[in-house]
Amino acid sequence: MVDADPPDHGPSDWLHTWIGSTAPDRITVAGRDLPGEIMGQLSLTELAFLLVTRREPTAGERRILDAVLVSLADHGLTPSALAARLTYTGAPEAIQGAVAAGLLGAGSVFLGPAGDTAHFLADALQEHGGQGTDDAALRLIAESAIEARRQAGALVPGLGHPVHRTQDPRVPRLYALAAEEGTLGPHLRLLERVAEVYEESTSKHLPINGAGAAGAALADVGVPPGSVRGFVLIARTAGLVGQLAEEAQQPIGRQLAYEVEHRASGESGSAPR
Amino acid sequence: MVDADPPDHGPSDWLHTWIGSTAPDRITVAGRDLPGEIMGQLSLTELAFLLVTRREPTAGERRILDAVLVSLADHGLTPSALAARLTYTGAPEAIQGAVAAGLLGAGSVFLGPAGDTAHFLADALQEHGGQGTDDAALRLIAESAIEARRQAGALVPGLGHPVHRTQDPRVPRLYALAAEEGTLGPHLRLLERVAEVYEESTSKHLPINGAGAAGAALADVGVPPGSVRGFVLIARTAGLVGQLAEEAQQPIGRQLAYEVEHRASGESGSAPR
Amino acid sequence: MVDADPPDHGPSDWLHTWIGSTAPDRITVAGRDLPGEIMGQLSLTELAFLLVTRREPTAGERRILDAVLVSLADHGLTPSALAARLTYTGAPEAIQGAVAAGLLGAGSVFLGPAGDTAHFLADALQEHGGQGTDDAALRLIAESAIEARRQAGALVPGLGHPVHRTQDPRVPRLYALAAEEGTLGPHLRLLERVAEVYEESTSKHLPINGAGAAGAALADVGVPPGSVRGFVLIARTAGLVGQLAEEAQQPIGRQLAYEVEHRASGESGSAPR
Amino acid sequence: MVDADPPDHGPSDWLHTWIGSTAPDRITVAGRDLPGEIMGQLSLTELAFLLVTRREPTAGERRILDAVLVSLADHGLTPSALAARLTYTGAPEAIQGAVAAGLLGAGSVFLGPAGDTAHFLADALQEHGGQGTDDAALRLIAESAIEARRQAGALVPGLGHPVHRTQDPRVPRLYALAAEEGTLGPHLRLLERVAEVYEESTSKHLPINGAGAAGAALADVGVPPGSVRGFVLIARTAGLVGQLAEEAQQPIGRQLAYEVEHRASGESGSAPR
Repeated sequence: MVDADPPDHGPSDWLHTWIGSTAPDRITVAGRDLPGEIMGQLSLTELAFLLVTRREPTAGERRILDAVLVSLADHGLTPSALAARLTYTGAPEAIQGAVAAGLLGAGSVFLGPAGDTAHFLADALQEHGGQGTDDAALRLIAESAIEARRQAGALVPGLGHPVHRTQDPRVPRLYALAAEEGTLGPHLRLLERVAEVYEESTSKHLPINGAGAAGAALADVGVPPGSVRGFVLIARTAGLVGQLAEEAQQPIGRQLAYEVEHRASGESGSAPR
Repeated sequence: MVDADPPDHGPSDWLHTWIGSTAPDRITVAGRDLPGEIMGQLSLTELAFLLVTRREPTAGERRILDAVLVSLADHGLTPSALAARLTYTGAPEAIQGAVAAGLLGAGSVFLGPAGDTAHFLADALQEHGGQGTDDAALRLIAESAIEARRQAGALVPGLGHPVHRTQDPRVPRLYALAAEEGTLGPHLRLLERVAEVYEESTSKHLPINGAGAAGAALADVGVPPGSVRGFVLIARTAGLVGQLAEEAQQPIGRQLAYEVEHRASGESGSAPR
Repeated sequence: MVDADPPDHGPSDWLHTWIGSTAPDRITVAGRDLPGEIMGQLSLTELAFLLVTRREPTAGERRILDAVLVSLADHGLTPSALAARLTYTGAPEAIQGAVAAGLLGAGSVFLGPAGDTAHFLADALQEHGGQGTDDAALRLIAESAIEARRQAGALVPGLGHPVHRTQDPRVPRLYALAAEEGTLGPHLRLLERVAEVYEESTSKHLPINGAGAAGAALADVGVPPGSVRGFVLIARTAGLVGQLAEEAQQPIGRQLAYEVEHRASGESGSAPR
Repeated sequence: MVDADPPDHGPSDWLHTWIGSTAPDRITVAGRDLPGEIMGQLSLTELAFLLVTRREPTAGERRILDAVLVSLADHGLTPSALAARLTYTGAPEAIQGAVAAGLLGAGSVFLGPAGDTAHFLADALQEHGGQGTDDAALRLIAESAIEARRQAGALVPGLGHPVHRTQDPRVPRLYALAAEEGTLGPHLRLLERVAEVYEESTSKHLPINGAGAAGAALADVGVPPGSVRGFVLIARTAGLVGQLAEEAQQPIGRQLAYEVEHRASGESGSAPR
């Protein structure tokens, strides 16, 4: 840990935030009066975008944002959903812990790839920005970016899915919506070129995956790549709240752990505690 | 820990979920085709409500849901926001951990009171349901419920705020919106009676707080009390993603911990590690 | 949320800690020089006790502390271990998230009962402290405490276990160790009386469980009830680190989620993502 | 996310663990009878080592393990400690959440460097293993490893500290203890060479930091680099439990957030909620 000089302990100019503040008679969020200018005016999706980008989305951008968010909220009994349900089993009085447990699995393997793809595409566009963004230019960018990944021994983000081998059903829908709303920008278009070039150069078909398309679509409406994983987390929180509402009514967690322990120990009568 | 019989390890009838499922060519959420019937159709707010209540909100309910969610997303440099920012300081590569840290403070003291108020109001209405819900009946219910709390030595949920001593600015706005959208139901109305009765019987003015009104408003549109804290977590995740986007650009965490350690140890030059 | 006056924003007398501090040439923990007086002198168990109670344990107390800690570290593929492993599946680069997920299930149902039992026993002893702590006095205390629980409709903490129906194998060992080390104090002894009285008055045999005995044993060596759950968390972190070291070599998480999704959806070929 | 074939859904050979298991009359941990062979025999530190490495530490190794663990448990009001205390402020009833919040900041910047250093040293030793581990060979390894880092534009792990600019007080103590116990092995010795070579080639003095020495010392007693961060988490959990025991008695969190919000908003009377 090599570090710059420790920060100066002087006046607190550094201690401020644009996000929100509270006073006895006023709550301000994003520089606006919360009750008067946000409540009743903006949806949660719009506020999230406003907080991150410091502008309101257009109607078309909002539709894309919501389409991406709902596409990432839930996909069944994933590791994330199971971790949340199993945590609820032990601590049903602290649902915030169960939601947190579900979010903590959003990393390099699951859910994180949306942000990785956004970074990959944005970096590629930035490095080769002088070449324009018509299809021919994007193909060249795709070729360079894939080649750089190959030389680094790294996978190409945004391609391939363990289940959706031929096509991820979310992807064509997201492209169609982006086209419809006029937000089909360089990130989504570059990702298509990346998939093409990858298939041509390797003779392997790896379809664009839903996480990758989500990251590209968010980047095209102006979400910085560094906040894409954050949007995934907002989406996933909604899904987890649904999973936990169901867990409270029709529990899976205890029986699942019981069965697992039973099978693992080869014992009868064992159970989790 | 006294427990019922360990669950039977038989066929997996118990192992199912309505929330979502994935197959090679299909993703289903809430029993619907995700790309065709949800993406482009529902906002994240609508999906969250659908997952919890198993029905879509009306347009008016949706507006109330969003008003509540945006009212809870952020209030500045709260303990929750600071915990997230300080966690980001140590592990910026794992933003899911910083968001989780911010959510974990949503407990009995902060943010949790929304759900506590919803439970309190719903229980009071259920116990005295035979009395109807006109204003006179609600006053009687309020009197009984406050009296029961007093006898148990417990606080009355939904009243009082450490900063907003006269009036929480979110509260009149939420009541006005509910009236406008026709969702001003028994929970919000009972909460007003509770505040009145409390003031009359104690001669102390404790205004309805924003968390309490939020919980009552959610209950009035059909969110079960047990899921109110979950909606708070969805809202707060959006706020935390905003806080962390800012922290990445204009960090507070390291300097804050440095200053705190400096002041606490009375040393010059100390810094967190 | 009724709250006391907001704290005064004056000088920072409030901002100090005894636990530790750092200066350029010195690190102090528990008021001692870390390198010279703690490293090489104290075990982690001894330091944990010192930080919480502000004194070092005796050799006998240390042995009891370690016996309790190792008794709580791991019990196989519990909900806690599975939540950690499933979280690791999605984010193997952030092991702190997987450990956190495993700890978050330490609540009212699993692991938390150790602290609940310590509180229950300590409160009972305090309320009836004037009666002495010989066996006859402890029986009377047990009778009162059980009766109070029954009237409140609450379970008696520390009794019963979903698997160990006749006897929890940790319990006699812990009592024997406490007797051997001279730390068999009023909490452990009261817990025995509680089990006896419960069985006599209900004709149901509920053995003392391992969590309950652990809480009582910690209370008898001087751990405040409010920190018992903390000791459980230290123990469990060690177990989770073991689980995750194994998960990295012989993964269970992905296959488990795959199988669960497969069974839940009744589909072939489905898998978690 | 390019992925191997989904795992086969066949018999559950994959579903087993060596770490622990539970049956009605028996709890087994690390293949041993928990009450008879672990409780009263092993300390928590020894059990943690046993679970990760599958052997018991020698007496000397145990002393080093404990010295490393206590060196990492707490260093005052760090971001990690503050995140835990602020989380406790909102949810004092769920201490597992506050501990989890404190652990989640153990990432690439704070606490994680112990594991990074262990990986760096172990990889360097493995790549150049044929050269032996006498001082001359270790210097050559250090030169190659530093050069590789420089070419990759990466920092050298284990060197430098924002506060302990001349010397981290934990480091000489850890080296002395390792020498005393006969565990001063290739990782600790290579780290010394790395510091020397770095200073000679850059003319900048970056002392070995405590996290780096801790990682090297753990590697020298046989902890795999992939589990070093896990040991850091065990240590830190103990420190956080101490911080939270103090927070319950002498709270800092609420006042801190109040002051921060106050200073950030430039308002009087504001407070967190």
